[in-house]
This record gives sequence, structure tokens and C-alpha cells, in this order.
Amino acid sequence: MSSRPFNFSAGPAVLPDEVLAQVAAEMLDWRGSGMSVMEMSHRGPEFSEIAQTAEADLRDLLQVPANFHILFMQGGGLAENAIVPMNLSQLNASGKVDVVVTGAWSKKSAQEAARYADVQIAANGAATRYTDLPAAAEWQLRADAAYVHVCTNETIDGVEFHQLPDLKALGSDAPLVIDCSSHQLSRTIDWSRVGLAFGGAQKNIGPAGLTLVYVRDDLLGKALPICPSAFDYRVVADAKSMYNTPPTFSIYVAGLVFQWLKRFSYAGKTGLAAIEQRNIDKASLLYTALDQSNLFENRVALHCRSRMNIPFYLRNEALNGVFLDGARARGLLQLKGHKSVGGMRASIYNAMPLEGVQALVAYLTEFETQHG
Amino acid sequence: MSSRPFNFSAGPAVLPDEVLAQVAAEMLDWRGSGMSVMEMSHRGPEFSEIAQTAEADLRDLLQVPANFHILFMQGGGLAENAIVPMNLSQLNASGKVDVVVTGAWSKKSAQEAARYADVQIAANGAATRYTDLPAAAEWQLRADAAYVHVCTNETIDGVEFHQLPDLKALGSDAPLVIDCSSHQLSRTIDWSRVGLAFGGAQKNIGPAGLTLVYVRDDLLGKALPICPSAFDYRVVADAKSMYNTPPTFSIYVAGLVFQWLKRFSYAGKTGLAAIEQRNIDKASLLYTALDQSNLFENRVALHCRSRMNIPFYLRNEALNGVFLDGARARGLLQLKGHKSVGGMRASIYNAMPLEGVQALVAYLTEFETQHG
Repeated sequence: MSSRPFNFSAGPAVLPDEVLAQVAAEMLDWRGSGMSVMEMSHRGPEFSEIAQTAEADLRDLLQVPANFHILFMQGGGLAENAIVPMNLSQLNASGKVDVVVTGAWSKKSAQEAARYADVQIAANGAATRYTDLPAAAEWQLRADAAYVHVCTNETIDGVEFHQLPDLKALGSDAPLVIDCSSHQLSRTIDWSRVGLAFGGAQKNIGPAGLTLVYVRDDLLGKALPICPSAFDYRVVADAKSMYNTPPTFSIYVAGLVFQWLKRFSYAGKTGLAAIEQRNIDKASLLYTALDQSNLFENRVALHCRSRMNIPFYLRNEALNGVFLDGARARGLLQLKGHKSVGGMRASIYNAMPLEGVQALVAYLTEFETQHG
Repeated sequence: MSSRPFNFSAGPAVLPDEVLAQVAAEMLDWRGSGMSVMEMSHRGPEFSEIAQTAEADLRDLLQVPANFHILFMQGGGLAENAIVPMNLSQLNASGKVDVVVTGAWSKKSAQEAARYADVQIAANGAATRYTDLPAAAEWQLRADAAYVHVCTNETIDGVEFHQLPDLKALGSDAPLVIDCSSHQLSRTIDWSRVGLAFGGAQKNIGPAGLTLVYVRDDLLGKALPICPSAFDYRVVADAKSMYNTPPTFSIYVAGLVFQWLKRFSYAGKTGLAAIEQRNIDKASLLYTALDQSNLFENRVALHCRSRMNIPFYLRNEALNGVFLDGARARGLLQLKGHKSVGGMRASIYNAMPLEGVQALVAYLTEFETQHG
């Protein structure tokens, strides 16, 4: 298994070898049940145990408070861009939603929310081409907004909030909604500042098709009448994510990832603290190499560089193809940048080992020596 | 693998052993790519090939005409109960939707559609406790309905349309929408009578979390403004199901099931014709045993008995627990009926071998000898 190449895909993305090996081993017979997990009724005792364990482990890892529901849903971040305002935009009857635009994803969120709410762009990083976060002190927040939306890690632009905004300190009583799709479970979350968090699973958690929603209990029950039952957080919470058939196999794989994380150790730490430390070390290694280079560059401001998604550019773009070919030949996969911004992108999620980043850095150095 | 028990779950449900074995074998490295299918970018060449092949094979199996789009979506049948009217209820500006209620599922569809449309129950099988289908000639269809909704196989009640209604012959020009979740791909579909078909994958196709939608091209582009982009058929069709990240792994497993079906042979036939013949034979075997019994009974009218979901009851309900315990001891799993109707239910989807039904029939006979 150690001979697998290193996969830098932005998502769906690399999963731990040992999780995949366990999935393969249990494929035809989950623990003597005589069934694959794919074949189990979602209401049977076997799958109920799988789902309950997964939720408990996730709650434990992220220290999700008891007054938050964890929902297993479908549709990914893009669907949540509609589902969130369908559930929350009438929280206080203002129908107002403030969105901080920090990159491609929050921009999409603002556009979609406008189908359901009076949306205001509270701040926009466009002036810096999304290489920096607009300072929180300058956000234009409306006193009667139903909620404030922030994308805490922009997958395409590579900017990350390293501290969640404190809306109360900014004079707002609105709940904060965070789209944490692409750095979910890579670090701790300060739940005291959050009303709702959501994220697709396909970065740090498991197969595409599963969406995690963490929602504070007092925000439920205000869905618009046009909100489909299957996407009404109150309905989903009351049914413990079994209102419709959930993506059972994806929940199972996610549960194995949670268990892998709980036993993960690094630098004298275990669990989420350990993976966060490794994520810091991996990102630091790669940013240092990029900053010391004359050929490669990352353009994001130092204080908000993403630990997960690191876009970088060759100063000589004519070398892009040669670079990608060489990377692939060395077993460094899926490094091509998003089509909207070009260049390269290394997504170094939880399951990317330190050795993967070391191999990439070694290749950067070697490539610069040859072509720099 | 032949020692696996027989799994009669109504869904998620049994999958072919050889498909599961292939999934396990390819788990860490899909065909030399160095990646699990779960780890592939949905826009990369490897997954594009998987998705395109799956769609082409499904189109071939079901003989889906070129003017129908096949969409890979999320949310299952329950979400489609909202997504269909969000897309189609304003097809002709009447906002009227006629629903034929034949059991638990179409009843739910009617309730959910009422969020978006002026819903009329065109006919209702409640008088027969959903043991018979209301005769098409007696349906109350409105001339200006945007569409007519029918559930062609009721998973809980065990009634199936063995011929699709011909709305034109009934004097209606409205497109027919069919919820075919629980018998999808078990038989041919007469597309000349259909405008849109949908179904969750978790019966005959693959893991829960994937929804198949087959929609005629001329029905696109009329979605309500409050329809989320991720569920707007026009948007999904234009993006070839890649508007948001699709449930990639489920599509992959579905694709393997399609290939299994294409090479399936039985009684001198191959492909869909072969599986349909086996489904007829399996259902016939089980219904004959039930009808000849003094202890067990199926209550559905002969002309509309489902080939997929066969509810049955013990005339002495005090024996239910003993029956289920004995079944489990013989490797006959998940036979308990739906909680809303009680009794037993044998779901005998495509992947259930003839031997599974034979084993069940043998057990019925043996049980009746002991307890009848």
C-alpha cells in the first residue's frame, strides 16, 4: 500500500490507506452480518449501530456541544447554498442575509441565497483578487440580518479563516453560518461563535454524496414553506437523519475515517490535535518552499493562507505542462489548478501523509534547478 | 461467496456478489490509476470515463431515447417528490398536478407536491387498502394539468403497474411522471408514455445516495425561481450531472451493476430481457407458494402484484416472531414487513438469485407443516 502515489486532488480526495483496506475487507460481509454495508436497511440494527457510532465519534472529535444536531444529508455544499437560506432566512422575519465574499465559494453562496432572501455582500475580497480576507472590523453587517454567511476555507482561492469572526464583538447578534467544506475536521471549531456549519464530505471525511450539517437547536423550525421536507433541518433532526434513506455507505466510510482520526497520533498528540499539528507542519513545509523559490509562488497573504488548499503558480507559465507531466511521472497526482484560476494547486487534506508533501517539495526543488 | 445469506431487504438491498467482489478488489487502486474511485476528482479523466460508461450502459439497457437526459442526482425519491414539482409544475402555467394515489409512496408524493402546486388526487386506492390499482378509465384527470404523477411500484404495499397508463388514450396531453424507484431496471419501460421517470438507486442499482432521473428534453427550463440550482434539471443536464460534485462512488458501483446486467443471461435471454424473465419466475414461484398456503397470504389483486416487493401475512400473527427467528437461523434476512403495515415482506430485486426465493419457499412450506 505504501507504493500508492500521492494524490493532491481538491476533492473527492485522498483517504487513509488503512480505511480503504478495511472497506475492501468488509465489502461482502460486514462483521459476520452476511451483508455488505451497501445492502443493509438503514433502519436495521447493524446500520443503526454504524450511524450512531459515526455520529458519536464525530461529536467527540470536534467537541460538538449537546445543543447542536449533527445531520447526515445529501447535495453537498452547492445544495446547502439553497438549503441554508430555505431554513434560516426567516429566523427573525427580516429575510435579510449578509454574506462575506472571500472567494469563489462564498460568491456562489451569495448568488444562490438571493433566490430566497434579501442578500447583502457585507464585504468583498475581490479587490485583492481573493488573496486576502476583508478585515472583520470593516464588514457591513445589518443589525436585523437573519444570519451572516462566511466560507471559512476557500478551496479554489486558498484563503482560510484561522480564527472565526466574533459577530457579537462586531455588534451583531445574528448567528454565524460557516461553510467549512474544505477544512472540516482539519482543526478545532469554536462553537461558541457558530450557529450552523456545513460541509460536503469529499475532502476530509469520505465519499462524495454525504453532507454534514451541524446546527444549533434553537435555529430549527423556521423553514420556508417551499423548503422540501427532505431538506428541512427540523424534519431531518427529528428523524435522526433517517427521514429519507441516507447515503449509508458514505456514512460508514466516514465513520471509519473518524475512528482513524481518533487513534491518529503525531508529535506526542492524538486525535484532532495530532492531525491539526500535522496539517500545520505540512502546510508550513510547502509554503516555505514556495516562498524561497524564484520559480514558484503562492499569492495569498500570510495571515490567511489555507492549510488545506495551496494554489501556486509558475512564474513561467509555459512550463506548466512540463511540470505536470513530471509530477505525474513521480507519482504526484492531480496537481492542476482549478480551471477558473489556472496554475497549480496542492490540496493536502488530513489523509495526505507528510511524506507526500516532502515528495512534492523535493520535486519543486529539482524542477527549479532544471528549469529555473 | 456462495455462502452468503439471502437478503430480502426492501432497500438498501442486495447487490450481486461479483459486483461487490470487484469493488473490493479495485478499492485501493482503480485499474492502475493509483487511486480509489472515492479519491478521484469528478472532473478528471478516470472518473469521466466511469460516469460516461455508466450512463451509456444504462441508456442501452433501458433503451432510453436520445431526447431523454439521464441525470445522476442526490436526495432519493423523497427529495424528488419536491424536486419534480419545483421543475415541472409550471410547465404550462396552470400550476396543476394530478396524482394517482396507489399506496404509501404516491401518497407522500401528493403531500409534498402540494407545497408547490394545486394538487388533485386523480384516483385513490385507499378503499381497497391499496391492494388494488384504481382503474385508469376512472381517473379524474384535469385537461390543463402540468403533469400526472404515478408510482409504478409501491414498495410498501406491493402493487405494480404492469402496463404504463396511456394518458393520451385517457384524453390527457399532460406528461406522465413515474416514480419507479423500487422496480427501476427490473423490466423495460415504454418511454413513449413517459415524460419523466425517477428512482433512488438503493433497490436495483447501487448504494443509497444516488438518484436517477430520466427527463424528456422538452420538459426542461421551466423550474420555479425557488428551485435550488443543484436540483434544476436544466442546470444539471447542461452540466452533465457535474454541476455539483455527484456521488461518484455510487455512480461507479451502479456502473458495475449495469455491466453485470448487460452480461446477465437466463433462460436463453441476455441483459434486461433475461433479468425480467428471472424476476417473473421468482415472483411466480413465491406467489404460488403463498396462494397455496393456509397459513400465509398475500392480499394484492392478481393483475397488479409486484414482482419486486411481496408483502405477506401469517394468518396467525402470534407466530410472527417465531417465523422471523427461524428465517434468520436459515440465512433468510430482513423479512420483517414495513412498520406501517406489519407482517412480512420479501423484496426480491434483480440481485436476488432464484435460489434465494427457492430457499424462502422451502422455509414457508416447512414452517407451515410445523405450525399450520
